[in-house]
Amino acid sequence: MKFCSNCSHPLVERIPEGDHRNRFVCLHCDTIHYQNPKIVAGAIVEWQDKILLCKRGIEPRYGLWTLPAGFMENHETTEQAAIRETLEETCAKISIHGLYSLYSIPHISQVYMFFRAALAEPVFSRTNESLEVELVDEASIPWDELAFPVVRATLEHYFADRKNNSFPLRTGFIESHQKDMIK
Amino acid sequence: MKFCSNCSHPLVERIPEGDHRNRFVCLHCDTIHYQNPKIVAGAIVEWQDKILLCKRGIEPRYGLWTLPAGFMENHETTEQAAIRETLEETCAKISIHGLYSLYSIPHISQVYMFFRAALAEPVFSRTNESLEVELVDEASIPWDELAFPVVRATLEHYFADRKNNSFPLRTGFIESHQKDMIK
Repeated sequence: MKFCSNCSHPLVERIPEGDHRNRFVCLHCDTIHYQNPKIVAGAIVEWQDKILLCKRGIEPRYGLWTLPAGFMENHETTEQAAIRETLEETCAKISIHGLYSLYSIPHISQVYMFFRAALAEPVFSRTNESLEVELVDEASIPWDELAFPVVRATLEHYFADRKNNSFPLRTGFIESHQKDMIK
Repeated sequence: MKFCSNCSHPLVERIPEGDHRNRFVCLHCDTIHYQNPKIVAGAIVEWQDKILLCKRGIEPRYGLWTLPAGFMENHETTEQAAIRETLEETCAKISIHGLYSLYSIPHISQVYMFFRAALAEPVFSRTNESLEVELVDEASIPWDELAFPVVRATLEHYFADRKNNSFPLRTGFIESHQKDMIK
């Protein structure tokens, strides 16, 4: 962030009066440009004993497997974001059961939310964002080819919880070094 | 958003290739400037049968009562954000029990998260952000002077759930017209 998006003048970094942190500040029009974490909303889409996985067709992690998920947009709810992202990445129409996992990833300033969801019918397809979309049972999860640590953490909890048919909210955070733990 | 924060050239609104939405796009350096919802993290801080409320000393809703909460910052977890905001607004040091409520407010592109939390000692004070900070029991909640509908919704659930000593995650959304429901 180099220039003011309001008046185009160069920005400086300084702590505004009454604040505790460095911000990008415009000395010409006095706008303070805050930067905040982004929400990634996604779904564990259930069909019988299987869940929906996508093989990523876009960077980062092209070719690795993930749960349908993406950046929440302005003017939608978290549930709407999970439904929209699932539709965009898999063509699947889902209904939300409830929030299942909430993970902070502070080193990249993201907060992930995965909702448990039901597939109305087993209708889905590959898309511009997904090379393949498949219903996968527990034994077939490609643990060594998952795209993101937060997906691994969520799926590990999910399959353990499914044995008890009880799905308490799972929360946690992903540390920087974990990004290299997945092959 | 009028100018590119990367190169200072004027921005246009258009749907980038492969996207579905209008974005602010720089035709000079090709940067796409996405805008996404912000997270507000806060706490229901428990001490015996009371909780901590703040009388707002800043706009919006100056002089009305709220739970300690504020915008999550980059490079922190949701729990750290709730702890930090509580400290900044009330000088209280808390420990987090768990997430209690998650509300989307799509018309202002915010997502609220309130955590249940414990006060280590009944030590707190007014701050630059809070005209007053008080431990309040259920009978003394100023229902007609609450700052935000999301605080009302969270507190209504909380006191009902407390009667059963069970605190399931409460989720929902706040609609635009509700902003005017609080006097």
